[in-house]
Amino acid sequence: MARRKPDIVRDHWRGMTRAAQDDPDQTPEEIRERVERYWPGLTTDPGGVDYLETEVAGLPALWAVPKHSPEDRVILSVHGGGGVSGSIYTHRKMFGHLAKASGVRALITGYHRTAYPVPVEDTVTAYRGLLDQGFDAGHIALAGDSLGAGVSLAATLRARELGLPLPAALMLLSPWVDMTVGEETFDTNRATEEFFYKEVVEILAYLYLGSADPKDPLASPLHADLSGLPPIYIQAGGDETLLGEARRLAGNARAAGVDAEIEVFPGQLHTFQMAAGRSKVSDDAIGKLAQWVRPKLQLP
Amino acid sequence: MARRKPDIVRDHWRGMTRAAQDDPDQTPEEIRERVERYWPGLTTDPGGVDYLETEVAGLPALWAVPKHSPEDRVILSVHGGGGVSGSIYTHRKMFGHLAKASGVRALITGYHRTAYPVPVEDTVTAYRGLLDQGFDAGHIALAGDSLGAGVSLAATLRARELGLPLPAALMLLSPWVDMTVGEETFDTNRATEEFFYKEVVEILAYLYLGSADPKDPLASPLHADLSGLPPIYIQAGGDETLLGEARRLAGNARAAGVDAEIEVFPGQLHTFQMAAGRSKVSDDAIGKLAQWVRPKLQLP
Repeated sequence: MARRKPDIVRDHWRGMTRAAQDDPDQTPEEIRERVERYWPGLTTDPGGVDYLETEVAGLPALWAVPKHSPEDRVILSVHGGGGVSGSIYTHRKMFGHLAKASGVRALITGYHRTAYPVPVEDTVTAYRGLLDQGFDAGHIALAGDSLGAGVSLAATLRARELGLPLPAALMLLSPWVDMTVGEETFDTNRATEEFFYKEVVEILAYLYLGSADPKDPLASPLHADLSGLPPIYIQAGGDETLLGEARRLAGNARAAGVDAEIEVFPGQLHTFQMAAGRSKVSDDAIGKLAQWVRPKLQLP
Repeated sequence: MARRKPDIVRDHWRGMTRAAQDDPDQTPEEIRERVERYWPGLTTDPGGVDYLETEVAGLPALWAVPKHSPEDRVILSVHGGGGVSGSIYTHRKMFGHLAKASGVRALITGYHRTAYPVPVEDTVTAYRGLLDQGFDAGHIALAGDSLGAGVSLAATLRARELGLPLPAALMLLSPWVDMTVGEETFDTNRATEEFFYKEVVEILAYLYLGSADPKDPLASPLHADLSGLPPIYIQAGGDETLLGEARRLAGNARAAGVDAEIEVFPGQLHTFQMAAGRSKVSDDAIGKLAQWVRPKLQLP
């Protein structure tokens, strides 16, 4: 009998929950170290991509450069990790797959691991840096997963406030955009979720918010006025608790006149694209992102 | 009470053994996939190192380029994995740490995953390619772990046969250099070993040898005439079954008039340097390799 193909993303999140149960006193530093250790293994090296380290906002950042990619297009890529974990290294390969599939170099940036608004400001600094380097705003897409998606969206809103030209497109993977933790999928998807239970996300939101209001539109862009934003493509897992805010975000964007699409991948969990190279559904999702973004960047 | 610092290399090898016990029918392909999945997580990203993909012997290879490293020195780095697993990607970060600590760029090469002599020939092709690119042989060091160490050594012997100028130095980490699997540390270290039991190494040797004699000096450089070779620095774990051949290799090299050093790290297992960035003893070992190799490459 053929063996059931394992779901390595599900195993990963389950392992995170087990670690939290085994040691309820684990520190954010220990969570961070666990993610650094185990997340990179979920993704294969895409191959054919060079990684060049640079510095943005005083932090290391990575250019992921697919062979033969044009020099004047870029996907500014912002990692997730709940604000307590994740790095340019944990997400190097996932954004490398996206870069390779798109045929567009990615600039993978980090942010200072402190509360809002610093991650948003750091991402605006990275975006502004690309403009200063001569990139046309219409040739820049933003991509982010989880908190990185929320931060990407908030940085775009902040760029709008600052009167900067806006990027051409936003790709949001399992976006975490609501620090009120108020959507009903925290209840209705509780049985299929493996880690992002309401009480876990509430702690992460508390840490991220610092002294900010949970409905501050740049901390929780679900509560922002999205009018005038570039096209948005959202991907979410059908089994994740954050599905609700992904759907509501798409609805809000459309109501504000934004060209917004959402695709829900049945049976998938939070940021399942991390299994790129090891899971067909992850590869399909990456392929769809690539296919969506190329015309937005005026590529054939 | 302070928690005991986990030995992640030991846990890794123990997990490999458990997987083999859980599924005695696992294929080399499944072993390979397990190593690809779990090995990269043992090592941190060193930071400050660029990775540029190229091609050597028709296979992808990686330049690991520390910032500000000289362009005319190189560590040709050959990964292990028993001949059935390992890749330029599993070993990217370990050789990246070695490159960074040494201040010398590494060329991390693969080899076709078939029996001897192909891996040796592929490595000679890589070495010859560096000479053809204009690298002075005296500015090239070879480094390898496990089978990669044996292959590095055999490639140097083959270069000697071909009348090529020899590299400046050899760094051999837990070298696997004896396909007769004959050393007594397979018995005396059996209790402290976690994976490389005699019967496991015998299977790997059978697969690697193909139709070759186990005492063929280029398949088993423990049985080679080592005279005229450049300086050799060997590191081995005190708890590993391959300790015996590391020691005998150092003795053979010295008896042949080669400047050979060996350092045994008590309590350590096979290729423990893979925990670079996560283990002090691994970082110390990398630091010692760097300190040893710099003067060999005529660097201050």
